[in-house]
Amino acid sequence: MTGRPVGYLRAHGFRGPIWPVNPRATEIAGLPCFPDIASLPGAPDVAIVLLAPDRAEDAVRALAARGCGAAIVLAGGYAEGGPDGAKRQAALRHAAGGMRLLGPNTIGLVNLTDGIVLSATGALEMEGFRAGAVSLVSQSGGILGAVLSRGAAAGMGFAKLIATGNEADLDVADFIDLLVDDDATRVIALYLEGIRRPAAFRAAAARAQAAGKPIVAFKVGRSEAGAQAAISHTGALSGADRLYDALFRQIGAIRAERFSDLLDIPAALATGQRMAGRRVAVLTSTGGAGALLADAFGLAGFDLPPPDAETAATLSALTGEPNVGNPLDLTLAGVKTEIMQGAIAALLDSPRYDALAVVVGSSALAQPRLAADAIAACLVGRDKPVLAFVSPHAPAIGAALQAQGIPAATAPEAAAAILSALAAPAMAPAVQPAPPGPPPGPPPGPPHGPPADLRAGQFDEAESKALFARFGVPAVREAACATPEEAALAARAMGGRVVLKALSRTLAHKSDAGGVRLNLAPGDVAQAGDGIFAAVTQATGAPPDGLLVQEMASGVEVILGLTRDPHLGTAILLGMGGVAAELFGDTALRLLPIDRATAQGMVDELRGAPLLRGFRGRPPADEAALVQAVLDFATMGDALGDRLVTAEINPLFVRAAGQGVRAADGLAVLA
Amino acid sequence: MTGRPVGYLRAHGFRGPIWPVNPRATEIAGLPCFPDIASLPGAPDVAIVLLAPDRAEDAVRALAARGCGAAIVLAGGYAEGGPDGAKRQAALRHAAGGMRLLGPNTIGLVNLTDGIVLSATGALEMEGFRAGAVSLVSQSGGILGAVLSRGAAAGMGFAKLIATGNEADLDVADFIDLLVDDDATRVIALYLEGIRRPAAFRAAAARAQAAGKPIVAFKVGRSEAGAQAAISHTGALSGADRLYDALFRQIGAIRAERFSDLLDIPAALATGQRMAGRRVAVLTSTGGAGALLADAFGLAGFDLPPPDAETAATLSALTGEPNVGNPLDLTLAGVKTEIMQGAIAALLDSPRYDALAVVVGSSALAQPRLAADAIAACLVGRDKPVLAFVSPHAPAIGAALQAQGIPAATAPEAAAAILSALAAPAMAPAVQPAPPGPPPGPPPGPPHGPPADLRAGQFDEAESKALFARFGVPAVREAACATPEEAALAARAMGGRVVLKALSRTLAHKSDAGGVRLNLAPGDVAQAGDGIFAAVTQATGAPPDGLLVQEMASGVEVILGLTRDPHLGTAILLGMGGVAAELFGDTALRLLPIDRATAQGMVDELRGAPLLRGFRGRPPADEAALVQAVLDFATMGDALGDRLVTAEINPLFVRAAGQGVRAADGLAVLA
Repeated sequence: MTGRPVGYLRAHGFRGPIWPVNPRATEIAGLPCFPDIASLPGAPDVAIVLLAPDRAEDAVRALAARGCGAAIVLAGGYAEGGPDGAKRQAALRHAAGGMRLLGPNTIGLVNLTDGIVLSATGALEMEGFRAGAVSLVSQSGGILGAVLSRGAAAGMGFAKLIATGNEADLDVADFIDLLVDDDATRVIALYLEGIRRPAAFRAAAARAQAAGKPIVAFKVGRSEAGAQAAISHTGALSGADRLYDALFRQIGAIRAERFSDLLDIPAALATGQRMAGRRVAVLTSTGGAGALLADAFGLAGFDLPPPDAETAATLSALTGEPNVGNPLDLTLAGVKTEIMQGAIAALLDSPRYDALAVVVGSSALAQPRLAADAIAACLVGRDKPVLAFVSPHAPAIGAALQAQGIPAATAPEAAAAILSALAAPAMAPAVQPAPPGPPPGPPPGPPHGPPADLRAGQFDEAESKALFARFGVPAVREAACATPEEAALAARAMGGRVVLKALSRTLAHKSDAGGVRLNLAPGDVAQAGDGIFAAVTQATGAPPDGLLVQEMASGVEVILGLTRDPHLGTAILLGMGGVAAELFGDTALRLLPIDRATAQGMVDELRGAPLLRGFRGRPPADEAALVQAVLDFATMGDALGDRLVTAEINPLFVRAAGQGVRAADGLAVLA
Repeated sequence: MTGRPVGYLRAHGFRGPIWPVNPRATEIAGLPCFPDIASLPGAPDVAIVLLAPDRAEDAVRALAARGCGAAIVLAGGYAEGGPDGAKRQAALRHAAGGMRLLGPNTIGLVNLTDGIVLSATGALEMEGFRAGAVSLVSQSGGILGAVLSRGAAAGMGFAKLIATGNEADLDVADFIDLLVDDDATRVIALYLEGIRRPAAFRAAAARAQAAGKPIVAFKVGRSEAGAQAAISHTGALSGADRLYDALFRQIGAIRAERFSDLLDIPAALATGQRMAGRRVAVLTSTGGAGALLADAFGLAGFDLPPPDAETAATLSALTGEPNVGNPLDLTLAGVKTEIMQGAIAALLDSPRYDALAVVVGSSALAQPRLAADAIAACLVGRDKPVLAFVSPHAPAIGAALQAQGIPAATAPEAAAAILSALAAPAMAPAVQPAPPGPPPGPPPGPPHGPPADLRAGQFDEAESKALFARFGVPAVREAACATPEEAALAARAMGGRVVLKALSRTLAHKSDAGGVRLNLAPGDVAQAGDGIFAAVTQATGAPPDGLLVQEMASGVEVILGLTRDPHLGTAILLGMGGVAAELFGDTALRLLPIDRATAQGMVDELRGAPLLRGFRGRPPADEAALVQAVLDFATMGDALGDRLVTAEINPLFVRAAGQGVRAADGLAVLA
């Protein structure tokens, strides 16, 4: 294994000087060997350290002393292995001083732009890699090998592939930054296990977006259970993976859902083509594969309209078939170059379509170049995306297409994922990169003083709602009372029927403990209050701190919450209330800060949003006030910073249009 | 193309007599050629007809006259092309008389068990096909080619592959029947565009299940919009694809979600192994790929528990690592045969696991046989499933594993799909095939007379609910009235607050037309009735037929409906009412007939089922009465047969335990 990197470096085209260091050898792979780092003829640009942890630290120290630019430490046995390893890793980092460090526990990096491979990955056993425009930053070395070998076999080209390993120093955010400035890189693919510096990551991603370089991210850990925050629904509904969904959405990154997407989508984006709408034509020589594609496209929300009259006439004249549809099946017309080329040109020139997918069927096994040549001939002077779906096992055909810049999918689902990426709103047309705007600032709203007067711990319901009201989210009319008798007086003063609740700084789920009574006449409040005292005492072993009397409220129920993730920061959650958020998972999640458009987007994202908009004869609700409440709650989250543990309004009643929102229940926990 | 089938037949091992027929040739591919069918030396077992439609019909007629067993007609230009083609197809079928016909518009069939290929698929350009235990019936010839070529390249073996084309005679159901009796076939894979004879299909599928031969089905058309039955929610909620979901579930078939699953799942099932639980161990030599697998398994609902103490001790001794987890990463221990083999054996012998997944990492590119040999050595005498995930591009390694009976996935999602299939409840362990029981009969219940007294057309609400009550589903107390004054009298007689509705045989969505008033005091009914007459008249141009006065009902709202699909028959739908069915799609669907267990299964399937069971302090609802109502409604559907167009109760109130259900609104349309 220690011999591999030198061999790979030379096999893949490095022509500069290589200085092996080994006290027990005079020559390695035909190169003169130095006994130690101090003897090197100069300061190396980069060193690859192939020593076990017990000796790597000294080597790194010596390299730093020699003025080396950066060191790559491949060995494992560091922080990934436990506390002892973490200590070793800290010492390694310290030994590097000002020298940059990649790893440890990495497979290294592969630079195909310049023919510099500094890696031990077995994938380098392959030959004939193509330099291309896709770069990969992977937190796993094995995945680097899988992406490189699979991509190369599929005819894809790469610029740089970097495995960051334990990220003792250089991390994913650093390499995104680097790749934004790398002329050879047009698309950045990420394989992520976690993000160490979310702020730096977001800043680097914003630079990539400003530079018009799409990010495609695959994140493992999707099946991890959400934080088991029993105290609030918001915590339970904001699983770690959903936070990453929010993050990727907010930085404009495309999330690769399947592992293969991490290859297919970047390769397609690297062509520079983008899809202006969602209408796609399918051209096939085999009905079944055409149906497969149409099906996958339909599931992904694409339209397959029939050709417009002019295009249909052109296609009929070309094929001799009176009826031409979409998919357009050339089976009966015969799969001939001139027909294929004519059909591709006609479909691309039709104003009815935003992209074209061409099926390469089993007949291609006898005529392997037909489709690729026909497509390539038509691409000249046309700028709509064309992709191929290779239906039989024909890897050489797929690779040839891909090498000509024609995305070639081997699964219908991959073809749909490719089109979805090319059509994603975040993917502004390559010719018009998004202007490099500043990152979103705090949302507008009245200035709020620092929350220094707030105590730590769990707030009771009345305290929680008072806090929310300070930031602009009003509560229902209510009165906090010490005894049932006091509550009865308050209810009479309020007029009308009321809600009576236990007031407590420790009880989280009041209704589960018998601490909530709805729709009470004022005369029944005293007795109900006694009942609540008894029920809560029985359920928890202690009486509540008091009682809360509230007016009965109505409107569309939503849940609005804040939760703080130790890694990614504060997230805001909006969900349809009642049972929808909990049983049907109808929630929208974003990381703070957010702006008004994002708050509106959260409302739009809810499947239950029609309930706010006059669904089946209901009156429209005050959606504008809801959007403002989301913004106000977000402002509170920003102001509380890392003092926030969780905050939640459940339910928040969205009243009829013009009548605002009212928090009917609330909970806040501060650190 | 016409020369291909003879060449393929000989190239793939057929040694029996081949009799080419062509009036213009004396020899084809070295074989003496007959001028016409009448001149043949005997009655052929099967004929493959390579003529265009204009001459195929005569050839088929002559073959039938000659006593040929079956003819395969490859040509297209029949029913798939429109009405003229459909006529040609009918004539072709007529010409065949008692002779069986495969096609037209088919690529033919491939029998690898006996080395008989009667097909023109370009996939037969490949060599070295393996005979195996998976058979495919495909309604598309192109898909047959894709499955055969991809499967062969992946090291999979096949028994029979049949493309049924236009199914003028022999169809999918016929071939399932045939494959049930085929000793070489252990798994039946289906590629479906539609089912021509649902009853025959279900009967054949039941025979396959009784024989312990799993069916794996891929169905295109998933993105088709549901039947646009504006009149009932049931129709809109019962999209064509959901009916196929119900069908596959009810026949115990596994649905292939991705096209690649149609290869991977049958190949894994063909090993005969089944997974007894949902606990899986992952063994890897590369952390990233192990994480990928663990993630995919977790998303699919599998558990990855850490090893039990005894197994952990064995593994620690073996690897020299104190901490062994799941995934078990051998990176530091080194990827050596004896360690790998020991780890596989220990994990398979652990009572903690039901299956094992082994990652083949990039290092395998240098040691290609290591994993396959280690796994194969351990499989002897052990019967838990083992599958491999090949992380880098290494097709030869995957094919070698597959050829040794070890399912080899190249995508983590495929590995999860394979395990899901092996663990599916429908997949009884291969050693204990399900007993061949009769198909489900009509559910128990009181006998009902034929519904001959029922008129055709749309029933008004009162008529609809009277019909449902006849079959055992009670309605709320109500009175149909002609005028607002009559309604006011009825409301006073009823006592308490009431609901007032427009009564109509034409109005489907009453509330949208202002035809529903809730929570009225009896004294307000007359005026509300006037309002309904005015609103409905304004909305529809005609007054309602009358008014319906109902008691206010309460309980958990569900929707219960029947809808008739022209192809698959009558389906029953149960959904959470209110907005959940419509906005959140929380519904369960089955084809009739159903039994009690199926009705209970429908309730269990609803995400909103907790609402029936005392969710967050609510009283438990009468779930038993709901299950009975589902059965009663199904009985009505069976009794109405093809007179049913649609029937729906929305909402059906499920009252507190012991208090039954009440239909609060209903609609029936009969033919």
